[in-house]
Amino acid sequence: MLETGFTLVRCVGRARFGRLVTRHGVVETPCFMPVGTVGNVKGLTWEEVAGAGARMVLANTYHLLLRPGPEILEACGGLHRFADFDLPLLTDSGGYQVMSLSPFRKITEEGVHFSSPLDGSRFLLTPEEALRIQNAIGSDVQMVLDVCPSASEGPVAQRRANELTLCWARRSLEQPRTEGTLRFAIVQGGFDAEMRRDAAQNISSLPFDGFAIGGLSVGEEERVMMEMIEAVEPCLPKEKPRYLMGVGKPSQILKAIARGVDLFDCVLPTRVARHGTLWTSRGLIRINRAEFSADIRPVDALCRCRTCRDYSRAFLRHLYRLGDPLYVRLASLHNLTYLLEILAEVRRYLSDGEEGWVDLLHRNRMIAP
Amino acid sequence: MLETGFTLVRCVGRARFGRLVTRHGVVETPCFMPVGTVGNVKGLTWEEVAGAGARMVLANTYHLLLRPGPEILEACGGLHRFADFDLPLLTDSGGYQVMSLSPFRKITEEGVHFSSPLDGSRFLLTPEEALRIQNAIGSDVQMVLDVCPSASEGPVAQRRANELTLCWARRSLEQPRTEGTLRFAIVQGGFDAEMRRDAAQNISSLPFDGFAIGGLSVGEEERVMMEMIEAVEPCLPKEKPRYLMGVGKPSQILKAIARGVDLFDCVLPTRVARHGTLWTSRGLIRINRAEFSADIRPVDALCRCRTCRDYSRAFLRHLYRLGDPLYVRLASLHNLTYLLEILAEVRRYLSDGEEGWVDLLHRNRMIAP
Repeated sequence: MLETGFTLVRCVGRARFGRLVTRHGVVETPCFMPVGTVGNVKGLTWEEVAGAGARMVLANTYHLLLRPGPEILEACGGLHRFADFDLPLLTDSGGYQVMSLSPFRKITEEGVHFSSPLDGSRFLLTPEEALRIQNAIGSDVQMVLDVCPSASEGPVAQRRANELTLCWARRSLEQPRTEGTLRFAIVQGGFDAEMRRDAAQNISSLPFDGFAIGGLSVGEEERVMMEMIEAVEPCLPKEKPRYLMGVGKPSQILKAIARGVDLFDCVLPTRVARHGTLWTSRGLIRINRAEFSADIRPVDALCRCRTCRDYSRAFLRHLYRLGDPLYVRLASLHNLTYLLEILAEVRRYLSDGEEGWVDLLHRNRMIAP
Repeated sequence: MLETGFTLVRCVGRARFGRLVTRHGVVETPCFMPVGTVGNVKGLTWEEVAGAGARMVLANTYHLLLRPGPEILEACGGLHRFADFDLPLLTDSGGYQVMSLSPFRKITEEGVHFSSPLDGSRFLLTPEEALRIQNAIGSDVQMVLDVCPSASEGPVAQRRANELTLCWARRSLEQPRTEGTLRFAIVQGGFDAEMRRDAAQNISSLPFDGFAIGGLSVGEEERVMMEMIEAVEPCLPKEKPRYLMGVGKPSQILKAIARGVDLFDCVLPTRVARHGTLWTSRGLIRINRAEFSADIRPVDALCRCRTCRDYSRAFLRHLYRLGDPLYVRLASLHNLTYLLEILAEVRRYLSDGEEGWVDLLHRNRMIAP
């Protein structure tokens, strides 16, 4: 087996073409990871997600901790066997969801105390526990537990969060891991460039396999998001992968790639699909609109996905209005294919060392959403 | 192209092995038709339904009339093109659903006046209109409009319903149809053997391509259902196919086959699947039960379906509890495969002229539900 880890193959400006070797195979970057929150992308088999062009995927530790729980995952041989797939898998630490989804949470030096939104039962998620759960899941890339304060909290809370994140990252380094598993730490720091730089310098001095930029794509302006990436990027080691968490808008992914980011994940393509918005090379389609009721054209004539090959807008609209689960599948498959095809094109340009790749991309296929 | 129509190939006792030639291909009988109420089986592509062993399918005229409507279906080239499939298609007449689903309905000599449960808009469904809609759908087998009184109505209403059904059947014979389309009429008569016999004699004297037994499987005891089939069957012409509407319970299908029935349809396998009941050769599984939470076995080790090949009971339970649309797909696929595999086995026995096929079937594979 190849040794796991990242190789930076080529830079085009600040954009990077790289190769991430994981226990479940080699992933070329830049790469977008579809999100299978509780172990699968809603309505899709992993075979379909791979068929849409996914080369690496993400699952949420927080959700898997609540259901089905690490014991069941372990008894079933890990998430790959449980959910029948063999794509490289990254799991988040659970930190973000604890803050955004739990009705109760309290952060101490030890970890985060929180209650389940399902039945109120109490949990303590420590950096050690977060990794233990990710071991049970069988992830190829584990994220270390971080503190992700809400955007409304002031600089004092933000600084304290960064200190704790750093302390937890150090503790995480002590934890055992299965051979070949990679471990990434997370840079926080709110919307303050100075604080972001500090955090990036501190965290990236530790011997992790990669670094994530967390706490963005939480409602801030795109300009702010890009400023934070620009603040952090020069502080991150060139030879390690950079992962921008929670960004899935095609135009933002392209801008972040141009600023040196390698990995992305987001529920956006599948979530908007479920709610009736389909991405095309000519702009958004809201499938519920009456104009599509007898429209026999595919969603996007340029798209190679199963949905566009076999079904009309009229049929998708019909399924959407009926609430048929087949709609979720066909719509999610399309949006994922659309986005992943853009990423594949970006990689082709970057691996060829193509300058002006963003312009080429726009000329070749208009990136609408 | 082969001339469309039915050929009775072999009888084994009263059970029959036959061949129904339709515009979309040849169907061996006995045959169970999965139901794609509004144009597809919930959560499944037609390719998957065919892969589960379906050789002919059913869609509901009433539902397709309300949504998307015959105009849109016609504009999209018929249901086969709209929903991307090429299996032989039978459509019902809409009569049963008008009675069971519409908040308002009134039967006159002309037809049934009813209101849409979606928006209250008024419709008049006549025998002529029912066939016109089925032409727009592009069905291979059309059912003529019948009157299906509720079980609680007395013999006078029942007799009047039979008279009207006969009159509408006669009117239906006058209606134009696309070449090769087959047309079946329906025998009603409640739970009165005498009335059933009368209806069967009257209806089957008309030159239809097949005859259905309607108004059963509406809550009556199984014994009564079988008595009604036994009353009707000798009155139906041997050389025409017989279709028992709305029966999907494996044990009842076998009993009806043994009494001379050739065709079946029902939402049962997919509906119970969606609600958590999976059929296996060893009995029912209610997938929500805690005992399956870490059960890594397939639903049914004898089953050849995708679900049983790739997924565990534990994973299905997880998806079911999350309400993931993938559950609907995997569960429906399994129950359909289970039932259709039984039908395929019945056909193998009957085509071989195997006496005692019911016993053989039970010995080979226990028919649990």
